[in-house]
Amino acid sequence: MADDTLDRLEATIRARKDAAAMKSYTASLFFQGRSRIAQKLGEEAIETVIAATSGDDASIVPEAADLIFHLLVLLADADLGLDDVRRELERREGQSGHDEKAGRPLSFRPE
Amino acid sequence: MADDTLDRLEATIRARKDAAAMKSYTASLFFQGRSRIAQKLGEEAIETVIAATSGDDASIVPEAADLIFHLLVLLADADLGLDDVRRELERREGQSGHDEKAGRPLSFRPE
Amino acid sequence: MADDTLDRLEATIRARKDAAAMKSYTASLFFQGRSRIAQKLGEEAIETVIAATSGDDASIVPEAADLIFHLLVLLADADLGLDDVRRELERREGQSGHDEKAGRPLSFRPE
Amino acid sequence: MADDTLDRLEATIRARKDAAAMKSYTASLFFQGRSRIAQKLGEEAIETVIAATSGDDASIVPEAADLIFHLLVLLADADLGLDDVRRELERREGQSGHDEKAGRPLSFRPE
Repeated sequence: MADDTLDRLEATIRARKDAAAMKSYTASLFFQGRSRIAQKLGEEAIETVIAATSGDDASIVPEAADLIFHLLVLLADADLGLDDVRRELERREGQSGHDEKAGRPLSFRPE
Repeated sequence: MADDTLDRLEATIRARKDAAAMKSYTASLFFQGRSRIAQKLGEEAIETVIAATSGDDASIVPEAADLIFHLLVLLADADLGLDDVRRELERREGQSGHDEKAGRPLSFRPE
Repeated sequence: MADDTLDRLEATIRARKDAAAMKSYTASLFFQGRSRIAQKLGEEAIETVIAATSGDDASIVPEAADLIFHLLVLLADADLGLDDVRRELERREGQSGHDEKAGRPLSFRPE
Repeated sequence: MADDTLDRLEATIRARKDAAAMKSYTASLFFQGRSRIAQKLGEEAIETVIAATSGDDASIVPEAADLIFHLLVLLADADLGLDDVRRELERREGQSGHDEKAGRPLSFRPE
């Protein structure tokens, strides 16, 4: 898993969080704080929605990359990480569909 | 990479896309189509933003899991996948900060 | 101004806020609280964005109505109202473009 | 109604839409087109959500003003206006709660 692109990106993001030098875009996000990070996440989600619904499929991947990047920054800001999300998804995989709370998108476990 | 939780989730989602039986939540999303998938992605982003800014950090991980799940569904609906996003992120990693377009969060490459 | 549809809607919403009987949709929103109201506002904004970008102009007005309705509920929940928003817009109308803070959409004052 | 702040703002926005000189912020939005306008609307909604849930009630009114401003721009871009939204809200006021479609926030009619 250490070789995974997303995990490497997360490691870089965490390093920026501790960086003394607040120079990079990532570091500036941590410096601006939680509300600003959440705002950027929301904006990238809006752009992903627009890319997905305006017939411009070519822009979905860049927008999805921006969205995942800002999600990783948000997780790091809360001292959380992709592995916490993986564990949550694994927990849901293990659940029976009948045990799922209504409305939760848990039904993606293998059948 | 085949063992990664996110990749396994993606494989399950893709299998649902082709499923004859439109029974699961995932299959019902594909059946309802792109606008509905994008709408759900946007809603999960809003819930992640609220979890992140309302002092309720415990709910960030479940909301992030919902967000990533719906992002994977959106990618699959466009015949795209997490590997496309990984390639985009790797491409940015390789870019010099000076080559980045203004405003693009590309500056997370290792320095 | 008392005859304005938006003001009448706002008066109805405020009456619901104080309603002992928590029966209406509006009253249930106040009962569920700020986070839920904000979440619904965000969802209606997403639906407006999708209506606007997916070539489905006929659905813009219903979505805009939903958006404004939930904005009025949010304002009422914070003991604010449409008149506060009007005053803010009037304040901006009066400002010179050169006095505006960068990035603020204040430049709609008559020239 | 002609004296209403929102209607005056709308008139100014419409004038900008036809303006030969693309100088103002409003005119630049029309020039950039529908997707950009929808994106800005979504961003202002996110900022309103954050203002509402982060305990910063003082910023709700400025964000609500930004949201309404961009909604008026979106309506104008689609050759629609606040009066169309008013008519939609009036139509719902007139409907019996029992006639409402499930899930529609129509239940704000006076009881």
